[in-house]
Amino acid sequence: MKALLLIAHGSRREQSNQEVFTLVEQLKATHLAGYELYQAGFLEIAQPSILDAIESSVNEGASSVVLLPYFLNSGNHVVQDIPNIINQAKLKHPNLAIHVTEHVGASDLMLDLIVGLAKKS
Amino acid sequence: MKALLLIAHGSRREQSNQEVFTLVEQLKATHLAGYELYQAGFLEIAQPSILDAIESSVNEGASSVVLLPYFLNSGNHVVQDIPNIINQAKLKHPNLAIHVTEHVGASDLMLDLIVGLAKKS
Repeated sequence: MKALLLIAHGSRREQSNQEVFTLVEQLKATHLAGYELYQAGFLEIAQPSILDAIESSVNEGASSVVLLPYFLNSGNHVVQDIPNIINQAKLKHPNLAIHVTEHVGASDLMLDLIVGLAKKS
Repeated sequence: MKALLLIAHGSRREQSNQEVFTLVEQLKATHLAGYELYQAGFLEIAQPSILDAIESSVNEGASSVVLLPYFLNSGNHVVQDIPNIINQAKLKHPNLAIHVTEHVGASDLMLDLIVGLAKKS
């Protein structure tokens, strides 16, 4: 079973965290991404943590976990913090396949998305 | 003259800030968004600040400025900090038209973008 984890920073503002859970529900509902399990995981502040989300995916039967960083820039969170957490998870689950995709800001579609917003004003 | 300001958080990692300047250059190069002037502005840490970017747009002849928040969630930065800065700018430039678009994470294209990244793995 293959799990997709949408990995976000986490906010003190609950609505902001809720937006991440909503995206996960939408991803699940589209049936387009091709995973059996979808979860949110937060780097800081909000719950579940990334490690908890991985743990819970394993408990639900995942043998492969793909982390998708919901971050715009290749700042320290993307370059250091998330890889460090993945290393911790690999130590704990040596038989689990863990991959990480490009972060959201690295997508080829980002420029189109920004042009779309800019043209609305 | 109408200016588009891509408003980002700002990072201690210079490459992360450089990505924002690169996006601004790409926006300018596409000629698709329909503005005469394109600039980056940062909420924290990096330069120019949002207020400096507005000031510099005015100095270059902008009579209208559109701020596009390069943020994923409606956290405190989007809901409080950016509106506060816009209010300061309006006090300083009472004849300048200042608008703000939806933030990047609120775009209808975000789900497609995430599905695209998820399918690559």
